[in-house]
Amino acid sequence: MRVLAIDPGYDRLGIAVLEGDVSQPTLVWSACITPAKGTRANRLAEVKGAIEDAIQKYKPDLVALETLFFGVNKKTALGVAGARGVALAAAGTAGLQVLERSPQQVKIAVTGEGRADKAAVARMIPRLIALPPRPAGQKRLDDELDAIALGIAALAQKNIFAQIESPRHITPRG
Amino acid sequence: MRVLAIDPGYDRLGIAVLEGDVSQPTLVWSACITPAKGTRANRLAEVKGAIEDAIQKYKPDLVALETLFFGVNKKTALGVAGARGVALAAAGTAGLQVLERSPQQVKIAVTGEGRADKAAVARMIPRLIALPPRPAGQKRLDDELDAIALGIAALAQKNIFAQIESPRHITPRG
Repeated sequence: MRVLAIDPGYDRLGIAVLEGDVSQPTLVWSACITPAKGTRANRLAEVKGAIEDAIQKYKPDLVALETLFFGVNKKTALGVAGARGVALAAAGTAGLQVLERSPQQVKIAVTGEGRADKAAVARMIPRLIALPPRPAGQKRLDDELDAIALGIAALAQKNIFAQIESPRHITPRG
Repeated sequence: MRVLAIDPGYDRLGIAVLEGDVSQPTLVWSACITPAKGTRANRLAEVKGAIEDAIQKYKPDLVALETLFFGVNKKTALGVAGARGVALAAAGTAGLQVLERSPQQVKIAVTGEGRADKAAVARMIPRLIALPPRPAGQKRLDDELDAIALGIAALAQKNIFAQIESPRHITPRG
């Protein structure tokens, strides 16, 4: 089972490819894509290109996306919704199923605690999956770690194959 | 000047190609795309395909999109935001500028009145642009008329070329 996990955004896109199951997850590739400054159309075109390239190069069996909850900032929510639309369309075009996990489900999968903070999630990730070393001075950005955590949560999903067979469990509501 | 006007949605997508200027607009093509029932990923993949096909076939100079305002229903707003993201990414990938018009700007361009209702807009459209006949019993859907109205508003935009030269006037905020 190979999962392409996407933490969508038009300022920064976290993206990760994981494979294996929850007891033996492997990180195949991850990145934080930061589209060049420009119009939203140009940024979303970069987001689209990055996701399409990753699907073509890594041939995932499944796309994982975090569900979107309305935060305080409606403008941010609409921006993220646009990037999520681009990710969903890319998955649909490639004939891939989409597994959505809530932020809480991701936290539970990684830390066992649905109210864990970002630092706790970041601390747990290297205990669950081997992260390849980075060039000196280069940090993994939050969005990249969020995508890796989402990939772990997707692989942790019990009966993941059974759920794919039965779309009502995994298709988004509405 | 040829405009591809899109009224985005994942249940129904209104789409129209217009050319000329505001005193002589011509309708080149219009349609209401209704993606097959399925997951959001499949529907958005259809939306993406329809927009990409229209760009390739009709080679517009510009894409027009209606700005999104938050209505009562947040779920609908997020769904539309996803479809708008797909449209923006398609425009950006094709290197096309995007002109956004508010619903009020569209109403003013078509009826002269920013608070005009849907019926008034629908009555004015055939006075402003020649609509090709439809096969008997086939009605133009609201979404298709909305896209045509948006196209008229885009062509009505004064100094449209000047605005394209100077992106700050037409790029979306944020």
